[in-house]
Amino acid sequence: MIIVLKPQATEADAKSLLAQIASVGLKPLYMPGSERIVLGALGDERVLQSLNIEANPLVETVKPILTKYKLVSREVQAHNTVVRFGSAAVGGDRFAVIAGPCSVESEQQLLSVAEMVKSHGAMALRGGAYKPRTSPYDFQGLGIEGLKLLKKANDMLGIPTVSEVMDVSQVEKMTQYIDCFQIGARNMQNYGLLKIIGESKKPILLKRGLSATIEELLLAAEYIYDAGNPNIILCERGIRTFETATRNTLDLNAVAYLKQHTHLPVLVDPSHGTGIRELVIPLSRAAAAVGADGIIVESHLNPCEALSDGHQALTAPMFEQLMQELKPFVEAAGRTL
Amino acid sequence: MIIVLKPQATEADAKSLLAQIASVGLKPLYMPGSERIVLGALGDERVLQSLNIEANPLVETVKPILTKYKLVSREVQAHNTVVRFGSAAVGGDRFAVIAGPCSVESEQQLLSVAEMVKSHGAMALRGGAYKPRTSPYDFQGLGIEGLKLLKKANDMLGIPTVSEVMDVSQVEKMTQYIDCFQIGARNMQNYGLLKIIGESKKPILLKRGLSATIEELLLAAEYIYDAGNPNIILCERGIRTFETATRNTLDLNAVAYLKQHTHLPVLVDPSHGTGIRELVIPLSRAAAAVGADGIIVESHLNPCEALSDGHQALTAPMFEQLMQELKPFVEAAGRTL
Amino acid sequence: MIIVLKPQATEADAKSLLAQIASVGLKPLYMPGSERIVLGALGDERVLQSLNIEANPLVETVKPILTKYKLVSREVQAHNTVVRFGSAAVGGDRFAVIAGPCSVESEQQLLSVAEMVKSHGAMALRGGAYKPRTSPYDFQGLGIEGLKLLKKANDMLGIPTVSEVMDVSQVEKMTQYIDCFQIGARNMQNYGLLKIIGESKKPILLKRGLSATIEELLLAAEYIYDAGNPNIILCERGIRTFETATRNTLDLNAVAYLKQHTHLPVLVDPSHGTGIRELVIPLSRAAAAVGADGIIVESHLNPCEALSDGHQALTAPMFEQLMQELKPFVEAAGRTL
Amino acid sequence: MIIVLKPQATEADAKSLLAQIASVGLKPLYMPGSERIVLGALGDERVLQSLNIEANPLVETVKPILTKYKLVSREVQAHNTVVRFGSAAVGGDRFAVIAGPCSVESEQQLLSVAEMVKSHGAMALRGGAYKPRTSPYDFQGLGIEGLKLLKKANDMLGIPTVSEVMDVSQVEKMTQYIDCFQIGARNMQNYGLLKIIGESKKPILLKRGLSATIEELLLAAEYIYDAGNPNIILCERGIRTFETATRNTLDLNAVAYLKQHTHLPVLVDPSHGTGIRELVIPLSRAAAAVGADGIIVESHLNPCEALSDGHQALTAPMFEQLMQELKPFVEAAGRTL
Repeated sequence: MIIVLKPQATEADAKSLLAQIASVGLKPLYMPGSERIVLGALGDERVLQSLNIEANPLVETVKPILTKYKLVSREVQAHNTVVRFGSAAVGGDRFAVIAGPCSVESEQQLLSVAEMVKSHGAMALRGGAYKPRTSPYDFQGLGIEGLKLLKKANDMLGIPTVSEVMDVSQVEKMTQYIDCFQIGARNMQNYGLLKIIGESKKPILLKRGLSATIEELLLAAEYIYDAGNPNIILCERGIRTFETATRNTLDLNAVAYLKQHTHLPVLVDPSHGTGIRELVIPLSRAAAAVGADGIIVESHLNPCEALSDGHQALTAPMFEQLMQELKPFVEAAGRTL
Repeated sequence: MIIVLKPQATEADAKSLLAQIASVGLKPLYMPGSERIVLGALGDERVLQSLNIEANPLVETVKPILTKYKLVSREVQAHNTVVRFGSAAVGGDRFAVIAGPCSVESEQQLLSVAEMVKSHGAMALRGGAYKPRTSPYDFQGLGIEGLKLLKKANDMLGIPTVSEVMDVSQVEKMTQYIDCFQIGARNMQNYGLLKIIGESKKPILLKRGLSATIEELLLAAEYIYDAGNPNIILCERGIRTFETATRNTLDLNAVAYLKQHTHLPVLVDPSHGTGIRELVIPLSRAAAAVGADGIIVESHLNPCEALSDGHQALTAPMFEQLMQELKPFVEAAGRTL
Repeated sequence: MIIVLKPQATEADAKSLLAQIASVGLKPLYMPGSERIVLGALGDERVLQSLNIEANPLVETVKPILTKYKLVSREVQAHNTVVRFGSAAVGGDRFAVIAGPCSVESEQQLLSVAEMVKSHGAMALRGGAYKPRTSPYDFQGLGIEGLKLLKKANDMLGIPTVSEVMDVSQVEKMTQYIDCFQIGARNMQNYGLLKIIGESKKPILLKRGLSATIEELLLAAEYIYDAGNPNIILCERGIRTFETATRNTLDLNAVAYLKQHTHLPVLVDPSHGTGIRELVIPLSRAAAAVGADGIIVESHLNPCEALSDGHQALTAPMFEQLMQELKPFVEAAGRTL
Repeated sequence: MIIVLKPQATEADAKSLLAQIASVGLKPLYMPGSERIVLGALGDERVLQSLNIEANPLVETVKPILTKYKLVSREVQAHNTVVRFGSAAVGGDRFAVIAGPCSVESEQQLLSVAEMVKSHGAMALRGGAYKPRTSPYDFQGLGIEGLKLLKKANDMLGIPTVSEVMDVSQVEKMTQYIDCFQIGARNMQNYGLLKIIGESKKPILLKRGLSATIEELLLAAEYIYDAGNPNIILCERGIRTFETATRNTLDLNAVAYLKQHTHLPVLVDPSHGTGIRELVIPLSRAAAAVGADGIIVESHLNPCEALSDGHQALTAPMFEQLMQELKPFVEAAGRTL
C-alpha cells in the first residue's frame, strides 16, 4: 500500500505512521518527495485494515498495490476451475448454454420449454421460482411450486437446473429441488446470503451487480470461496450506464479481464445484458468469441404470454437459430457446443 | 400507456392489441400515424402487467404515462408524512440530525460518541451492529452485542437509535433493541427484506441503492408501504458515477425531486455521499438548503482508530462546527435545528 | 409525439394545445384519462420543435414516438452503405482492419509500422498528427509534418490513411494529405466541425463520444449527412462508466443495435475501448462476432518508446497474432479478412 | 509516481526502469515486496510523460502521486481568484447571479429579459448566439445578429454579457461584442479552442463536460491558464449518469471539492443541471449553501415561445422568487447578493 501524506505532514508524523505499519508486520518505506511525503507498506495488505490509515487526517490518499481478492485469483490457481452440477460442466471444453424461461409459470410451460432447449443442446435449465421485481404490483413467482416443477423437469428430462435464491430463508428448502443456486444482480452484495451459500457445497452462479465493479464481483466470490464453497460460476449480465437504447450495457471487457485474472468460469447473460430479443444472438456470438465459458439465455415458447421479461425471451425458432449461429464461433474459440 | 408498433404491424394487428387492452378494463386508443401505428391504453397501468404488451414481437416500444408508485406519491397524500420513533420526529419543523459511528465498536466508544452528538443537538443515534463489507477480510460488526450497546445508549441517554438490518433473519432480534431499522443501499431491492419490514410497524430508514433510480427508490418504499408500514424515511446517500475524486456523487437533484413527488420525509447522508470528511459540512449545508428533512452523518471521537470508514467520520470539534454552520441554513429554510 | 399534461390541466388547456399542434400540420389527438389528460401529435416530429411544447408549464412530460434521425436510418435506406477511400472499402464483404500508431512520431516509426500492418493484411493506416491530450503537458502531435508523413506512407506503400481532425481550421490543409478524416470522441458534438466536414465529400470516421448515447451518435452522423456527405463510418470506442479496471467500457450492444438501425458501416476500436493491450485481441474477436464491419487498432513497433498511449498498442508479434486469431471469427461471420 | 511491476518482472528489469527514472532527473525508489516489485519516481511527474512507463509490458499499473494540474491549484495560489468583466466580479464577496435566455431570439426578447433580470439583481446577462444542438433540425442560433443584440443590451442597460463560443473561427468576431466567453460542456476538451481562448485575455466561463471528471475540468482550465489567460471561471452544470428523472445530475460534491483544490471561482448552472424549471430554485439555494461563487440560470419572459430549452427557463415571477429565496442562504454563507 502506498500512502500519500498531506502537504502539512512532517517527518515526525511520517515516522509515527511508519511505526504503526511495522507494528502489524509489514515492511515500512519512507519516501520524502519535493511536494509530498510518500510512505509504503509492503506485504499482505489485508492486515492493514486494522490500522485504518485512511482515517488519519494527515493522509491525503491511500493507493492499494495488491487486489484484495486472493482465493479466486489466477495467481493463486493458474488452471481453470470447472464447476459441475448433474450432467453440466461449466468452464471446460464444452461451451455451456443454460436456457429456460425467466419465471416458472406452469408445469406445461416449463416442461415444454425444457424439452425444446434440451433438444437443441442446452446444458442446463434456468427458471425463476422466486422473482425479484422492481414493483410490488408485478408477478412475484410461484415459490415452492416452481421449485417442484424444476425438480420434475430434471427428473423427467435429465437436465440439471439453476434457480435464483433471494434470501437466506430460502436456501434450505431450495437445496433439495435444484442443482445450482443463482445469486441475482441485486443480491451480489447480500453478504449474509453469500456466507450461507458458501457453507453449502452446491454450485453457485453469481451474477454481477448492476453497478458492481469487476473487483467487487471478485470480492463477492471471495466471500463464498472463503466460507468453503469453491464451486462458483461468475456471470456478466450487463451494467447500468447512461445508455437507454438497451436495458443494460453488456460489459464484454469484463469477461476478457476476468478470464485473465480469475480461475473461475465466466458466463454471459445476453438476455438481461441487452433486454432486447433481437440483440441476443449477436451478443451470444460475441460472448463465445471473447472467451466466455458459456451463456445463460431466456427462452419461452410464447413470449407474449410470459409473466415476466417476455420482451427479451427467445422463441423456439430463435433459440434454434441461436444454437446454429453459435456453433462456428464456439468452434473458432476452440470449444465444442 | 402508449404503445408504438413496428413499421410492419398492420391495422389488424393493432385491432387485436386494442381488444386485449379493452379486456382488462382499460380504455383503448387507436392512432395511425404516417410512419407507425400508435396505441394508447388509459387507466390504471398496473393491470396492464398481465398483458405483457412489451413481449409482443410487433411492439417497438412501450411508454408508461403514469408512475408505478401510488401509495407514496404526493398525488395520493398532499401533506408531509412525519415519522416518529422515541423522541425523534423526521419530516416536521425540526431539521433532523442523526449521528454516530459507522460501526458500534465498544461500550466506551458508543456511549462517548452518543453523549457528544446528543449534547450538540443530534436527534437520534446511528451505529452499525451488522456491517456489509465489500471484502470478507474487513471488520464485520459486533452483531447482537452491538445491538445491546445501542439499547444501553438509549436507556442511559434517552436518544433513539437507528441501525442497519441486513437480513430477514435479523429482523426479530433487532426489534427489541433499536428504534428504527435502516435498510442499506445494497439491500434497497432485497424484496424479501422489504416485505418483512413492511409487516413490522417500526420506522424504517430506506437508503437509495448505489445505482437505483429515483423511481426505483420510490417503488422500494411502495413495497414497504403496500405491506402495511407507512413509517418510511427515504435517504439519498450518493450514487455511483464515473467520478472518482469523491466516493459517490451526492444527488441533491433527487432530494428536490423527491420532496415534490412524495409525501415521505427525505434525509441526506453526506458522509457516504462524499466519502471525504472535509466535504461533509458543505454538503450538509446544501442538504438543508435544498429542502431535505435532515441529515445522517458519521462521527467518531477518534477516527484514526475507527474499525470502518474512519476517513469520512467527523471528530467532536468538527461535529460541533457542523451544528454551528448548519443553523443559519436550517433557519433560512424555515426550520429549526 | 405524446404529451402528458399535469393533473391541474383542464380540457380548455388541452384544446389550446391541440390547436397549436394542428397549426403546424400535425394530426392532433385528445386522450382524457382518469388521472391525466394525454395528447398526441402525429406526423413528422421535426416540425414540432417550433412549438416548444415541453416549455409549457402545464406539460408534465413529452415522449417522442419517432427518432429524430432520418437520413442515416435503415428505414430510409435498407441496404448497407459501403464507404470507400483509396483501396479501402468499409461496410462490404471484407472485414476492415485499420491499424497504425496512436501518434505519428517520425518517418522511420510511421513507415515501419505501416509496412508491418500492411504485410499482415491491414486495409488502411491510422496515425494522429494532431492529438487531443487531457493535459497541456503531454505530447501534442507533429501537426503538418505528421500529415506529410502519412501522405508519404500512402505514396510509398499504397495504403490509404485515416487521421483525426480536431478543428475547422485544420480541414482544408488536411484534405490534400489524408484519405479519411477521423472525428474523435471529444469532438463528436462539435457541430461547426460536423458541418464543414459534411460539406466535404471525403469519408469520415465518426467516433462515439465518451458519454454519447447511440441516438446522439446517429444525430451527429445526421448532421454530416444532412450537410451533403454520406460517406460516414461510425465507430464504437468505449463509453465512460463507473468501471475503472478498464479504461472505458466497450459497448458491443451498441454495435449490434446500430447494425439494425442504420445503414452506415460500424467499426470497433478495441484499443481505446479497453485501454489494455492484453484485452485487444479478445475484444477484436468479439467485434467480428457481433457483426461489426471492422476494427481500428493501435500498433507500434516499440510501444515503450511511443509518445502516447503505448500501453494499449500492439507490438508486431501481437498484431500478427491478432490477424491470425481474427480469421476464423471473421469467416464465421460470413466475411473475409 | 508509483509503478507496480508484473509478477514476472525481475530485479534486473527493475534496475533498468530505475535508471530511466533517474535519467530524467527524478528520484528513483526500489521497493521489492512479497508478491510484486514496486518502484517510485519522486519529483515533478510531468517530466515522466516522456518515459512512457505505462507502455512497458512489465508494468502492471502506474499510480500518480501528484495531480497533473499546477497553475490552477490552491497549492500554488492560496487566495481566491476574482474574475472581473465590466461591472461583474465573480469569486469575491458578492454572490454572482448570471441570467438570461438560452438563445438570443430577437431584440425585444433579449432586452426585456435583460431589463427584468437586472432589475432583480443579476450581475451579468447570458444568451446564446451560436447554439450547439443535438439535432441538425433544431434552432441553431442567430449568429452575428445575436452578438450585436448582446452588445446593444450592454450598451443600453450597462449589464456585462456572457455568450458561448463554439469554434476557433468565432473567437475574433465575438471579442468585440461580448464581455466573457463561455466554453460549453461539449467543448470542454476542444483543445484548439482552449489554446486560442488562452491567448486572449478575455474572461472565460468554462463549463464541465457531461462526463468530465473534476480533474479533467481542472486540466482544461490549466490549458487556458498555461496559454496565458488566468481569468477563468469554472462551472458545474450537471453530469451524465444513469438517472433519467432529471436531465443531468448536478454534482455539488464537485463544487465543494473544487473550492478546496483550486483558487478559481466556481459557478453552478442549475438550469442545465436539473433540466426542470421547478427544481432550479432549490438547487440554487443549495449552490449558495455548498460554497459556490454564484449561479448561471436561464430565464425567459415567455418560456412557451422560447426557441430552445424553454422547459428549464424561469419566468419573471419565478426569477424574482429565486432572488428572494436565495438571499438568506447567500447571507448564511457570509456573502451578499
